[in-house]
Amino acid sequence: MRKIEHIGIAVNDLEASNALFGKLFGQPPYKMEEVASEGVKTSFFQAGPNKIELLEATTPGSPIAKYLERKGEGIHHIAFDVADIHAEIARLKAEGFTVLNETPKKGADNKLVAFVHPKTTNGVLIELCQDAPPE
Amino acid sequence: MRKIEHIGIAVNDLEASNALFGKLFGQPPYKMEEVASEGVKTSFFQAGPNKIELLEATTPGSPIAKYLERKGEGIHHIAFDVADIHAEIARLKAEGFTVLNETPKKGADNKLVAFVHPKTTNGVLIELCQDAPPE
Repeated sequence: MRKIEHIGIAVNDLEASNALFGKLFGQPPYKMEEVASEGVKTSFFQAGPNKIELLEATTPGSPIAKYLERKGEGIHHIAFDVADIHAEIARLKAEGFTVLNETPKKGADNKLVAFVHPKTTNGVLIELCQDAPPE
Repeated sequence: MRKIEHIGIAVNDLEASNALFGKLFGQPPYKMEEVASEGVKTSFFQAGPNKIELLEATTPGSPIAKYLERKGEGIHHIAFDVADIHAEIARLKAEGFTVLNETPKKGADNKLVAFVHPKTTNGVLIELCQDAPPE
């Protein structure tokens, strides 16, 4: 875990939240991106070495839509930057954590990502991420 | 907002969670600290430039005790490092955020801290923090 890569925050209305977090950070999001495979629209704000990712659901059955229904707006996950995501998945599985993606998948922001189930981490959804190698 | 200073995670049993997060980070907490004024025991893990703070309530009416009762274990707040906490409090108030501490108070880890009410930030409790000047 080299740093917190980003914090993911689930929001109902990305446009309204971009305005709100724009005021908080004193600058607008530097990027917006839709990840169709996850059913989300995202925006990114920079805070030094870290990012904040806002997530709005684009499809009713998506993980963010379900989260918003169950818990409402708020912090959805913490993503840690790792040097070798395959090694880290293997290490965490050996330590008894439930890793939801045995093989990392393509996430937003050109990352390879894998999630650790919150039931094994005190209710905290943890994402491992590593810059995707050039194709 | 110069970086994410730390993420605060509310836990029921600090000792058990120290073991769990010790496995996650591959190292034990580098520090433990009780903040009597807040009714919490805390531990800190390092992830590069960022920290994870685990919080267990020590008194029944404390903010963390109430949070655990209402929501269960999970991410409690995001703390941002700021250069000038007084200026940042004034700026956020002018932008319409509800700042819970007009005057910063002493937090864990030798910081001056102030909280922004989650009702004005999409359900996310935000802490501003700055290293406390030497006394």
